[in-house]
Amino acid sequence: MKNFVFHNPVKIIFGKGQIASLAGEIPKNAKILMTYGGGSIHRNGVYNQVKDALKNHEVYEFGGIEPNPRYETLMKALPLIKEKGIDFLLAVGGGSVIDGTKFLAAASFYEGEPWDLLARRVPVKNALPIGVVLTLPATGSEMNGGSVVSREETREKKAFGSPLLYPRFSILDPEVTFSLPERQSANGIVDAFVHTTEQYLTYPAQAPMQDRMAEAILLNLIHECPKVLTHPNDYDVRANMMWTATMALNGLIGVGVPQDWATHMIGHELTALHGLDHGLTLAIVLPGVLWVMLDEKMEKLVQYGQRVWNINGLSDKETALQAIEKTDNFFRSLGMKTRLSEHGIGEDTIREIVRRFTEPVKVNLGERGSITPEKVGEILRNRL
Amino acid sequence: MKNFVFHNPVKIIFGKGQIASLAGEIPKNAKILMTYGGGSIHRNGVYNQVKDALKNHEVYEFGGIEPNPRYETLMKALPLIKEKGIDFLLAVGGGSVIDGTKFLAAASFYEGEPWDLLARRVPVKNALPIGVVLTLPATGSEMNGGSVVSREETREKKAFGSPLLYPRFSILDPEVTFSLPERQSANGIVDAFVHTTEQYLTYPAQAPMQDRMAEAILLNLIHECPKVLTHPNDYDVRANMMWTATMALNGLIGVGVPQDWATHMIGHELTALHGLDHGLTLAIVLPGVLWVMLDEKMEKLVQYGQRVWNINGLSDKETALQAIEKTDNFFRSLGMKTRLSEHGIGEDTIREIVRRFTEPVKVNLGERGSITPEKVGEILRNRL
Repeated sequence: MKNFVFHNPVKIIFGKGQIASLAGEIPKNAKILMTYGGGSIHRNGVYNQVKDALKNHEVYEFGGIEPNPRYETLMKALPLIKEKGIDFLLAVGGGSVIDGTKFLAAASFYEGEPWDLLARRVPVKNALPIGVVLTLPATGSEMNGGSVVSREETREKKAFGSPLLYPRFSILDPEVTFSLPERQSANGIVDAFVHTTEQYLTYPAQAPMQDRMAEAILLNLIHECPKVLTHPNDYDVRANMMWTATMALNGLIGVGVPQDWATHMIGHELTALHGLDHGLTLAIVLPGVLWVMLDEKMEKLVQYGQRVWNINGLSDKETALQAIEKTDNFFRSLGMKTRLSEHGIGEDTIREIVRRFTEPVKVNLGERGSITPEKVGEILRNRL
Repeated sequence: MKNFVFHNPVKIIFGKGQIASLAGEIPKNAKILMTYGGGSIHRNGVYNQVKDALKNHEVYEFGGIEPNPRYETLMKALPLIKEKGIDFLLAVGGGSVIDGTKFLAAASFYEGEPWDLLARRVPVKNALPIGVVLTLPATGSEMNGGSVVSREETREKKAFGSPLLYPRFSILDPEVTFSLPERQSANGIVDAFVHTTEQYLTYPAQAPMQDRMAEAILLNLIHECPKVLTHPNDYDVRANMMWTATMALNGLIGVGVPQDWATHMIGHELTALHGLDHGLTLAIVLPGVLWVMLDEKMEKLVQYGQRVWNINGLSDKETALQAIEKTDNFFRSLGMKTRLSEHGIGEDTIREIVRRFTEPVKVNLGERGSITPEKVGEILRNRL
């Protein structure tokens, strides 16, 4: 096991009716900017619940943060933050709204072009405090310090993070997810699944506790979480999905172990170029990464096959290959079209993505840095 | 799943050589009281590592905190804390030293007889900040706000807790555990095991993520952690044990689910009356609790038998009974004598313990409050 520091100070407030506790979590004299997305919070009642809870606070609003939140959109909120003297950001939404709000928290204090925070990973030195009311379980952003933002102008999608960007609190009320469309529910399952595999399907690192926990999350995602598609109004089913997605990326399963993240990096490019849902890109890419990196990931793939998919009595290679096939089939069972050709994406896109990992500097991905741009091409061609 | 709040702000600093980072975690001008136990930290080098790391800090010392830390001993530290104006407590040791230090943190601010904090559970309103250098993986006290203290005079052992008692940081260096005696290593495994079952072997609460995580910890404790007995100097084995014990009682597996704690409550009495090691008392009591509460715990016992012990093809009752037997055998495989008669304890003690749960007020235990004093007697007689 590698040395590590784990420090996750997010206060999780979980359950029915918890949005009403908002007022007690934010200083009374705070000037709050409430951020949200395209308006689903108006339809599902969350907007009213939040406004009601904060009726004695000074609350401003910034709506219209889109999925894969855009730098261009977010930059429009900065003048409002400065003009009103906002000192608390309240993200009401899913991962995109939270990630966008984290960007605002850091950008508010950044002297210079805030894109540097993403493109040049300039360290965050100060940030506004953030609170969260989660409406879509998927990204885990409600309990970590990471953020991903896209830039329309250059069709780029970039990640950054800082301990200063952990939310002070996150309210998770499963009831607000009853009205999620099937597609978003399925995306959430895949996102949580691949967050887990990015921290698990690498090479053995003598960290059996982290392995068992990753397997616990995967087993739960396979056997329990798909019930959100068939029982969308079942509280316990939605509660389990919500907590599982948080557990998949709150840092716990990643301590002391190598991490991959190639599937995310390649998936981000598919979203940047074609606007595919984040979860969908992961479902497309992951089986390709596992297939192309089969030899390097063999030991963990065999363990995954045996413990998560209950594959027994086969050779290591057969176990690993069957585990990959079962993974792909699982994603398809959620309604995902996991082949690029099913989305009209072909060789042109693959060449462009390979170019992006080659220029201006060659970027290698994966837990060993051995996924070269050429291998990225191989991975994507495997998924045509 | 029940509503819950989860907020664990402890900074875990894990790995080889991490004690050297101590100085950066404590304010430079702090007046530190370093607390420790019977002197093993002198033999294993931890004392020197800590003193060396804090050579530019003002450090006072209070040693001699015994296993099952005593109120009478701890009270001797209070005058020193007041006289020197101590404003930071550094616990260097295992759960007993940490628990004792948590008591000091709260007692320092308590006006009146500090035993009230334990006996009357007077809420903690203020506490000195605490840091931890852990030397014995077992209790999880390094990542929670709980504490257990014993009173010699009355032979009582009481628990209390507060969010104010979470350590600011805990340093976990597995190398300092290489020299632990077998008995203490085995106690740690049992302690972590029973912490897990107290939060898991109750009744189904529609919390499959928490269930899977509890099972992950148990599987790891069964299949990996006993290697500390055969490979005491293997870093990865010790590291896995250390992190597993922390995970078993940092609050995560207990969120949103019922909890039992009867085994601990009954075990505390055995320690209070006969001085048995805490871990040993749990190994004695747990099988009895499961046996006597078989019907109430049936569903979870069957799940436990199937998922943790891989028992298949039997009736529910046979599965549950076999799971209990395997649990007992597991403890015995660690060198635990799990029968009261093996410790010369008989009916007299059982009657006294039943009396203690009957007078001055009747106390019922268990996740449903259905373990009456009479049932406590039945549980202990089952373990003669």
